[in-house]
Order: sequence, then C-alpha cells, then structure tokens
Amino acid sequence: MTPEASFTDAALRQWKQQADRTAKILHALSDEQLQQPVAPGKNRLSYLFGHLLAINDAMLPLLGLGARQHPELDAIYLAAPDRTQPQTLAAAELKQQWDQNAEALWTAFNTLTPAQWLERHTAVSEEDFAREPHRNRFAILLGRTAHLAYHAGQIKLV
Amino acid sequence: MTPEASFTDAALRQWKQQADRTAKILHALSDEQLQQPVAPGKNRLSYLFGHLLAINDAMLPLLGLGARQHPELDAIYLAAPDRTQPQTLAAAELKQQWDQNAEALWTAFNTLTPAQWLERHTAVSEEDFAREPHRNRFAILLGRTAHLAYHAGQIKLV
Repeated sequence: MTPEASFTDAALRQWKQQADRTAKILHALSDEQLQQPVAPGKNRLSYLFGHLLAINDAMLPLLGLGARQHPELDAIYLAAPDRTQPQTLAAAELKQQWDQNAEALWTAFNTLTPAQWLERHTAVSEEDFAREPHRNRFAILLGRTAHLAYHAGQIKLV
Repeated sequence: MTPEASFTDAALRQWKQQADRTAKILHALSDEQLQQPVAPGKNRLSYLFGHLLAINDAMLPLLGLGARQHPELDAIYLAAPDRTQPQTLAAAELKQQWDQNAEALWTAFNTLTPAQWLERHTAVSEEDFAREPHRNRFAILLGRTAHLAYHAGQIKLV
C-alpha cells in the first residue's frame, strides 16, 4: 500500500467503525424506543437518526459521487426542529433508508483514489479551492465522521 | 504541500476543530455547572471532561511523543465510574490541565512528518504491526478525534 493509500484507508476504517456502530444501535431499537428523547426535552432518537441520514445522504452530491437518494429528508430533519413535522419516517423506513445509504456511501467511497480524495468538494468553487486546497473531499469525510460520532454519543445516553 | 502532508494536515485540522470547540465549552462553565449531569443519572460534565483529559493525556506515550503529564487521572476518570472518587479536579485545575494538555499535544503532533504518522503506535508490537500496518499513529489520531466528538455531543446537551 502506498503512503497515500494508507491515509485514506485509515480514514475509511474510522468512518466504517462509526457507521457500523450507529447502525447496530439503530437496528436494536423499536419504533417506540425511537420516540424517546436522548434527555428530557431534547431531540428524540428518531430525529437524530433522521438528521444523520439526511447529512450523510447529502455527502453523495457533496463529494461528486451521485445524486441525493432522499432529498425529502431535509425539510423534516434539517430545516425543522424535532416534534414540528408530522411526516417523520417510521422505524422500518428509517432502518431501510439507513442501510441503503450506508451501502451506497461505502461503495462510492471505495471508488475514489487517494488523489481524488484530495480534490475539491462540490460546495467550494475552483477559485476558492486554489486558495484553500484543504477544502477537499478528505476533509468532508473526516468532518462527517466526527459528526456521526458526536450524535452517536448522544444516542448512546438512552 | 505533498499529498501525504495534505492528508495529515486535514486530520490535524479536524482534531484542532474538535479540541478547540470542547475547550471553549469547558472554559464557559462554572464549577457549579460542571457538577451537572448530561442527562438525569448520567455522567457529570466534570467527569466527562476529566475522562477526555485522561484519554488525551495518554496519547503522548501512545504516540511515542513523551511521558504522561497526569497519570493520576486514570484512577479517577477511567478506572472508576462517576461519583465514586472524592479527589476529582476542581474547575480551575481541570481547565488549567486541559489547556496544558491541549498545547502539549498540538506541539507534539506538529513535530511528526507524514511518514512518522504511518509508523506503529506503542501499544502494538513490531510483529503485530508487520501484519497489521493500519495500527499506526494516524489511526490513533482519527480515533481520538472521534472520541472527543462523541463526548462533546453529550456535553452539549447541558
């Protein structure tokens, strides 16, 4: 393995570890359990999983790896706070979409070469990227891994 | 910047972002506020910060970058659950040790070349590392960044 590949391998392993741990927790929860808040008055588990799903789904176009699978999630889990939208996903849908997304991301991630991980992501212009080359796909992967861990910590409180 | 340096730069930026965010929260909390649990019956903020400090302090020997600064923290914040040890750190001590540790880690991290980040960490033997070269310093950095984010998510609930 080249040094470049060792770095992307480590980051992909860390992503996978966080993603698999979170999926395992999700699949162990019933629809009723998903309605519990992580702490009194705070977001419910279902909302946090939906929020993570929306953010992770958006990685596909952000990394230039394909179209959104579930753009409809944003209105429910990103634009609006918990308990304000009636059309939230039922447990079975959430679990199914979660697994589809996790599979799509993992497949797409593994098509990228180390050099492609260092290319710009689609939310930064060519001009800005010329000045700020750290705004690359790899930084998105690391940031989204931390985001997953951040909410996993909250989810684990229940 | 070489491709190798771009990868370590991204990981160090992500670490710094998580570390700085957590430090900012810590410094805004009073001694009284640090006694609050993140949720009813769960760990107190003071315990979570002490736990993170102990784990991060242990990165120095784990990465071969120096001796522990505060090995005494392990008995309080790693080996024992919250509310069982009388000798916890007061807010001022916690904040001071946090800043010292953050500074020591950041300085030490920045002495490593990309090739050195791919070397084995001290908890893996040479024989095991020959078979499992992914058990390197870089993997520890990514794992500890996720660990910081995981507990930061809990801390932010208060």
